[in-house]
Amino acid sequence: MEINFITLLDLLGTFVFAISGIRLASGKQIDWFGAYIIGLVTAIGGGTARDLLLDVTPFWMLDGKYFGTTGVALLFVLLFKEKLFRWANTLFLFDAIGLGLFTVVGISKSVDAGLPFWICVVMGTITGSLGGVVRDVLLNEVPLLFRKDIYALACVFGGLVYFGCKFLDFPTGITELIAAMTVIMVRVIAIRYHIHLPILKPIPVKGRQKEDKI
Amino acid sequence: MEINFITLLDLLGTFVFAISGIRLASGKQIDWFGAYIIGLVTAIGGGTARDLLLDVTPFWMLDGKYFGTTGVALLFVLLFKEKLFRWANTLFLFDAIGLGLFTVVGISKSVDAGLPFWICVVMGTITGSLGGVVRDVLLNEVPLLFRKDIYALACVFGGLVYFGCKFLDFPTGITELIAAMTVIMVRVIAIRYHIHLPILKPIPVKGRQKEDKI
Amino acid sequence: MEINFITLLDLLGTFVFAISGIRLASGKQIDWFGAYIIGLVTAIGGGTARDLLLDVTPFWMLDGKYFGTTGVALLFVLLFKEKLFRWANTLFLFDAIGLGLFTVVGISKSVDAGLPFWICVVMGTITGSLGGVVRDVLLNEVPLLFRKDIYALACVFGGLVYFGCKFLDFPTGITELIAAMTVIMVRVIAIRYHIHLPILKPIPVKGRQKEDKI
Repeated sequence: MEINFITLLDLLGTFVFAISGIRLASGKQIDWFGAYIIGLVTAIGGGTARDLLLDVTPFWMLDGKYFGTTGVALLFVLLFKEKLFRWANTLFLFDAIGLGLFTVVGISKSVDAGLPFWICVVMGTITGSLGGVVRDVLLNEVPLLFRKDIYALACVFGGLVYFGCKFLDFPTGITELIAAMTVIMVRVIAIRYHIHLPILKPIPVKGRQKEDKI
Repeated sequence: MEINFITLLDLLGTFVFAISGIRLASGKQIDWFGAYIIGLVTAIGGGTARDLLLDVTPFWMLDGKYFGTTGVALLFVLLFKEKLFRWANTLFLFDAIGLGLFTVVGISKSVDAGLPFWICVVMGTITGSLGGVVRDVLLNEVPLLFRKDIYALACVFGGLVYFGCKFLDFPTGITELIAAMTVIMVRVIAIRYHIHLPILKPIPVKGRQKEDKI
Repeated sequence: MEINFITLLDLLGTFVFAISGIRLASGKQIDWFGAYIIGLVTAIGGGTARDLLLDVTPFWMLDGKYFGTTGVALLFVLLFKEKLFRWANTLFLFDAIGLGLFTVVGISKSVDAGLPFWICVVMGTITGSLGGVVRDVLLNEVPLLFRKDIYALACVFGGLVYFGCKFLDFPTGITELIAAMTVIMVRVIAIRYHIHLPILKPIPVKGRQKEDKI
């Protein structure tokens, strides 16, 4: 039962991440298949990096549903793109849900691999947020992750809450749910109340700047 | 005998992919060694990603000829660059040959690893086309793969033909040759008759766009 | 004793590479956490790629000090950024020291893995220089590596010297020290005397350029 719930959320996360990639690709002279690949990379990029770091078979090589879901996302965009803009808030919420779920999936995989807790948090953060970074790099933009409201940090918060619940001996399912909700809530609150970290101001450099390789 | 033929094609593929990287690097204030690295990454990037995903030793760590061939390609460009532009069509054909061969190499490696057929097609596509994506990202351009005439899709077609031939019990060598020729033909036909997939049109976004993280 | 010396240099290398990433991130509308991640990727990117290629556990998953050192680097930048510009030369030297040390670390890891000498040189070069490439790609710039004074080539020189010393049966510690010093000296001399490789001039392309996929 719980497995089905997680599977549903996982597919939803894949679906909305794929849409986010496809949408960002639109209007950039990219063809349908290119948009599909951008959507796919956005959806599976984080988990692929995690699996390579953990030295396990990348998850999408064991199950075709991620490629299929991305195809559905492309069809969805092609069919409904006229109306999509009305859904901006819905999409934001879905993206936050995907972020929350993927973070928890990344943490769980790492816990199963017997890694120390801080590595698990890092893996959760990578799983949740790296796909969007690859998407932005491919589309030749400075990744939003580095510029916008609390994003990767929401994954870190969620990870800490995960291990807080685990320390308190919560059942695994509850722990996962609370951690995912934390990520989602941090994202929603940060956006709604315009909470963000300070921007790093320019660092003045004088003198031998040109010769300075750093 | 067949091995020698494949080795020759493999070196040719490496050679022309390296030239494509070096040529794109020219005129961008990049020095010779930087151009060599760009050429190298173009030639070995796809196969390296494939081998990391398959969890086998990257092919170029087992054989120095890929680094050597890239060096020859750099020498070739430095010596003959005045005349290279006349060869634009030849280069296109070589690139298509490289794409076809690398796609087949990627599929064969994956078949040997016992992977399901759709994963083999994906690996063939990655082997053939990822090097060019890395090249474009390093040179700070939106990868051509996403914008131009059928490219990655040619690898997918070739992969389907490969498994069609395998299903019909063709000998391995013939299957590989037909699949490679398919990729090459699709590329040539797409270019000659200006065939391409539809471009994904801009998706209008109104309202809370700025706050929308997706 | 030697281990402590290397550990100190390793931390110093991590520290200065992290600062180089954080400094490049400043003034680009990137928040503190984003700058931390850029600094982290700069410091651990090269070694992570090496470990993935060697199929060993990424070094930072076994030891938290790289994440901690990057945190110290961020604090350092936030506290002292007003005065940092005076240190441009110091930073250049530290960066060269980091490059030299990371190159040697990469070579040593590869020698321990029983790889042939040219692969070890490649791994040293990747360890030393890839972090900066990832940093530049994330910040949407053509990597400096390809454009500026001898950088990756300094790693290659250092690697050749390493194996020269090894061939002459020098003790391991001395070999490592000499190789690291070579990298540092090549960098210092190249900068001081404006030594650089020739730039690859633009290659003219006429005719069917637009149709030419290469």
